[in-house]
Amino acid sequence: MNKKNTLKLYSEKKKKLLNLFKSNNIKGLYGPMHYIFNSGGKNIRPFFLILIYKYYGGKGTSINYIALAIQTLHNFTLIHDDIMDGSVKRRGKLTVHKKWDINTAILSGDALMIYSYNLLCSAKFSQEKKIFKLFSKTAIDVCEGQQIDMDFQKKQKVHVDDYINMINLKTGALFAFSFKIGPMLMGFSQKEQSKMCDLGLLLGQLFQIQDDYLDLYGGEKVGKQKGLDVLDAKKTYLVVIFYKLASNSDIKIFETIFYSKNNFSKKLSVVENLFEKYDIKEQVRIKIDSLRDKIDLIINKAVFSEQRKKQLKNYIKLLSNRDC
Amino acid sequence: MNKKNTLKLYSEKKKKLLNLFKSNNIKGLYGPMHYIFNSGGKNIRPFFLILIYKYYGGKGTSINYIALAIQTLHNFTLIHDDIMDGSVKRRGKLTVHKKWDINTAILSGDALMIYSYNLLCSAKFSQEKKIFKLFSKTAIDVCEGQQIDMDFQKKQKVHVDDYINMINLKTGALFAFSFKIGPMLMGFSQKEQSKMCDLGLLLGQLFQIQDDYLDLYGGEKVGKQKGLDVLDAKKTYLVVIFYKLASNSDIKIFETIFYSKNNFSKKLSVVENLFEKYDIKEQVRIKIDSLRDKIDLIINKAVFSEQRKKQLKNYIKLLSNRDC
Repeated sequence: MNKKNTLKLYSEKKKKLLNLFKSNNIKGLYGPMHYIFNSGGKNIRPFFLILIYKYYGGKGTSINYIALAIQTLHNFTLIHDDIMDGSVKRRGKLTVHKKWDINTAILSGDALMIYSYNLLCSAKFSQEKKIFKLFSKTAIDVCEGQQIDMDFQKKQKVHVDDYINMINLKTGALFAFSFKIGPMLMGFSQKEQSKMCDLGLLLGQLFQIQDDYLDLYGGEKVGKQKGLDVLDAKKTYLVVIFYKLASNSDIKIFETIFYSKNNFSKKLSVVENLFEKYDIKEQVRIKIDSLRDKIDLIINKAVFSEQRKKQLKNYIKLLSNRDC
Repeated sequence: MNKKNTLKLYSEKKKKLLNLFKSNNIKGLYGPMHYIFNSGGKNIRPFFLILIYKYYGGKGTSINYIALAIQTLHNFTLIHDDIMDGSVKRRGKLTVHKKWDINTAILSGDALMIYSYNLLCSAKFSQEKKIFKLFSKTAIDVCEGQQIDMDFQKKQKVHVDDYINMINLKTGALFAFSFKIGPMLMGFSQKEQSKMCDLGLLLGQLFQIQDDYLDLYGGEKVGKQKGLDVLDAKKTYLVVIFYKLASNSDIKIFETIFYSKNNFSKKLSVVENLFEKYDIKEQVRIKIDSLRDKIDLIINKAVFSEQRKKQLKNYIKLLSNRDC
């Protein structure tokens, strides 16, 4: 089983959805919906969702609708988050509100969210209400995470635990849903469902903290400009750890430059020196390693076969191995 | 049965929801959600939804969750529409994006939409999937209507039929849902469901065209400034009818002033004179009367009792009788 095979039916259903968007006459609404789906994206969440469902013995095609629903929900959050974060590019292309305008981005995001529920309706399972409830809880979590993240940007100091909680909501929730739905639909115990839920949350943390790390320490392979998070004065995991470790006087120096409209290369160099002083790079690597260990431990305890455990670990390595 | 009684259980459930919003610690997200619910609103859609359900013999308390879901969906559309339309006030209070900011309005609107699905999940009916599908279809209709309305603002001439189609989507869809859900849940025929659906659409048209009418011809009783739609150069039903009736030379005069940043009272006076020339006021009154007749005709054909028919007509008169 490889990624392409796992996503075969999903990809067919996604293509149908895209054709539906493309052929709709209300171009101002459906054009951007088609655009965001067509702008790449690795379909990581649908992939894990379908994979784990099969690991727990799941069969049939209905699962693909749930996978497509989670990707549609994900795309909705991207469109709206990009407005809120003022992002100009996404997956190498202009964001929806930059290519069109804010109104278009609001409305096409709204419609995508509604479509995600529509897709859930197409899945035939005996526990439909449970799926809807979990899906709504997940979507609310993502909104709460986005709000807490925006609140963080206005705060000076953010506690590490609060940062992790925010990531669990904003990024982890969609992964947690994708990992939990399989054992849930196949009638496995609450304990088994919790394991997979935790696995999703940890994977969300891993991806996010890796992203934060790569902004400064990714080198040229990452394919995007170094230090964009510093430029935007984003409260990344690196910043949160720095606040935890640094002396008051160094925090003062940091804040003077970090929140200033100073020359970018000057800003970057001061921040990098301060981070070096407290070995932030190593601290974050330790966190990443610890997350990987925790992820392996959970997988080891899962009820599916040793071969599948090995395969899952490989997939996670493959999809998250980004030079850190 | 009066409005207050009909909405008794609904109001209790709404109060609980409001308390949930109020007590949540993430104030930046839940504050605006509480605010929009607490800013008045006549709960017309929930009222008709519950009333019609009872007319068709519906019992039990679950219907109140669906009524609350439709009001939550309605409030979501208000928050996002107000951003898109640049509205400053709503129900006499500042709009969410004006009291807070656009990001807050986007996110709290999103969360309200998700909550509307959450509320649907709380309703216990045998046809749950059908409810979810109809609800999603309704929400998509509203988005499409909003997009078509925004497209209209960029067009010069809008055809009457296109305007009515837009209103059916943007305003009618929520009413159509509210009227149709009762006979649907109680197992009445498709024909009976269609009658109620049409009734909802016509009521949406009536309310919208009345609104358009009252902007110019409402007098002092309306309680808001005269001609705000003219000031915003909105393509109301009055404008659409004017385009249908006026000569090319009068349309030219109209366009020169209507889309200009001219002095407001001058603009208003030219537009009013042109409308008088083509008797737009009377034309719109004729349309409103015809809508009322159609509404009465549909009610006459419904399967519920004569007494209820009379009562429903009275409620519609009461809730829509705004001096036109």
